[in-house]
Amino acid sequence: MEPERAERLSAITTLVFDVMGTVVDIDGSVLAQTTAALQRHDVGVEAAGLVDQAGRALQQSMDDVRLGRSAWRSHRDLRRAALGEALAAHGLAEPPPDLLSELSGVIGRLDAWADSPPALDSLRSRYTVVALSNADVAELSRLSRHAGLAWHLVLSAQLARSFKPDPAVYGLVPGLLGVPAEELLMVAAHPWDLRGAAAAGFATAYIARPGARPPADDDTFDVTATDLTELAQRLP
Amino acid sequence: MEPERAERLSAITTLVFDVMGTVVDIDGSVLAQTTAALQRHDVGVEAAGLVDQAGRALQQSMDDVRLGRSAWRSHRDLRRAALGEALAAHGLAEPPPDLLSELSGVIGRLDAWADSPPALDSLRSRYTVVALSNADVAELSRLSRHAGLAWHLVLSAQLARSFKPDPAVYGLVPGLLGVPAEELLMVAAHPWDLRGAAAAGFATAYIARPGARPPADDDTFDVTATDLTELAQRLP
Repeated sequence: MEPERAERLSAITTLVFDVMGTVVDIDGSVLAQTTAALQRHDVGVEAAGLVDQAGRALQQSMDDVRLGRSAWRSHRDLRRAALGEALAAHGLAEPPPDLLSELSGVIGRLDAWADSPPALDSLRSRYTVVALSNADVAELSRLSRHAGLAWHLVLSAQLARSFKPDPAVYGLVPGLLGVPAEELLMVAAHPWDLRGAAAAGFATAYIARPGARPPADDDTFDVTATDLTELAQRLP
Repeated sequence: MEPERAERLSAITTLVFDVMGTVVDIDGSVLAQTTAALQRHDVGVEAAGLVDQAGRALQQSMDDVRLGRSAWRSHRDLRRAALGEALAAHGLAEPPPDLLSELSGVIGRLDAWADSPPALDSLRSRYTVVALSNADVAELSRLSRHAGLAWHLVLSAQLARSFKPDPAVYGLVPGLLGVPAEELLMVAAHPWDLRGAAAAGFATAYIARPGARPPADDDTFDVTATDLTELAQRLP
């Protein structure tokens, strides 16, 4: 490691984890549970297409909130609306009553990447371990219980009434913890999330999870690892 | 156990823990660290008297915020002001520069009751495990790391800009989690805290920690235990 990166990492006291995609497997879990729910309700809709369309609609509505083009609504509400739109576009303008709730609740039942719970358990003895997610507080508490994740602190973008990569969301961490940004390491599988954290002064750790969009050629990170086990080994 | 209490407990999905005094030893830790800090600074002030006076001033200023008699200030700020007043009353109107900071920081260095970390680890596999404390978010994250506590969610009265037993603070839990009060069990060593939670519709678990003020004759709780190990055994 270059000397300046090693020095940067030696100042870190607090790890700030993105959750969806970084600590838990969002793509695989959402597709598997959506497929199962559609089969259970005997609905002839192709799961991958539905998930893809709802995901794009959700991203658009989160961007609209973040950029001030629409009023704040929670991740859960926006996701439910996006799913409703996507079901309607697949010919299900009036889906079976429980289907929409089941699909909305998937975020609380995402499975952890196998390395995540033991790595968090180990890292909690060396660092302050914080979650910082675009998911709601309610979704994060359900998900943490389901996936066996435990934290010193859980922060949701909901507390800033916006979404990452809004600077206000990253600002929650130094603001509420009273810890300067130089002591904070953002850990994420999403280069866009790490760019937002870096702009707020955090150091960055990129976790190369399967399925996540790869870094751009000019992205640089203070640490790169394939999973949280490797991250724990690389940190001082 | 009476049948209605057993039925009540069988509906619980979420444990809501008071922290200071319930999960960590506040009286013993504060007295020991205050004594050490006063000795280190070679200040001839009697620790027990100082702690007692600062504690009473802090309680008064939290009550003033809670009852709308003064504007909101964080627990850390109020505690620092109370310590400053108490030091001045003991003849130290201008205390050594670091002393006030050291005494203010004690909340982040309270020691866990020995049963707490393993009991929380075990309870997290059966319940959603939430902290609800009058301490600030910053104090709670430091304290959780220091004392080896891990949570699915950490809520501070700071988020309601008040202090327990203000109903608004208990209301954070069903409000942010989207879980009805019937599913919530407040766990505390302070009867006043359990009375506040019961008024908000929570079930109650009283932990008879050493030094805590005992229940009144007409207090009733859904569970009583001497520590969190016994609580874990008593819960279904």
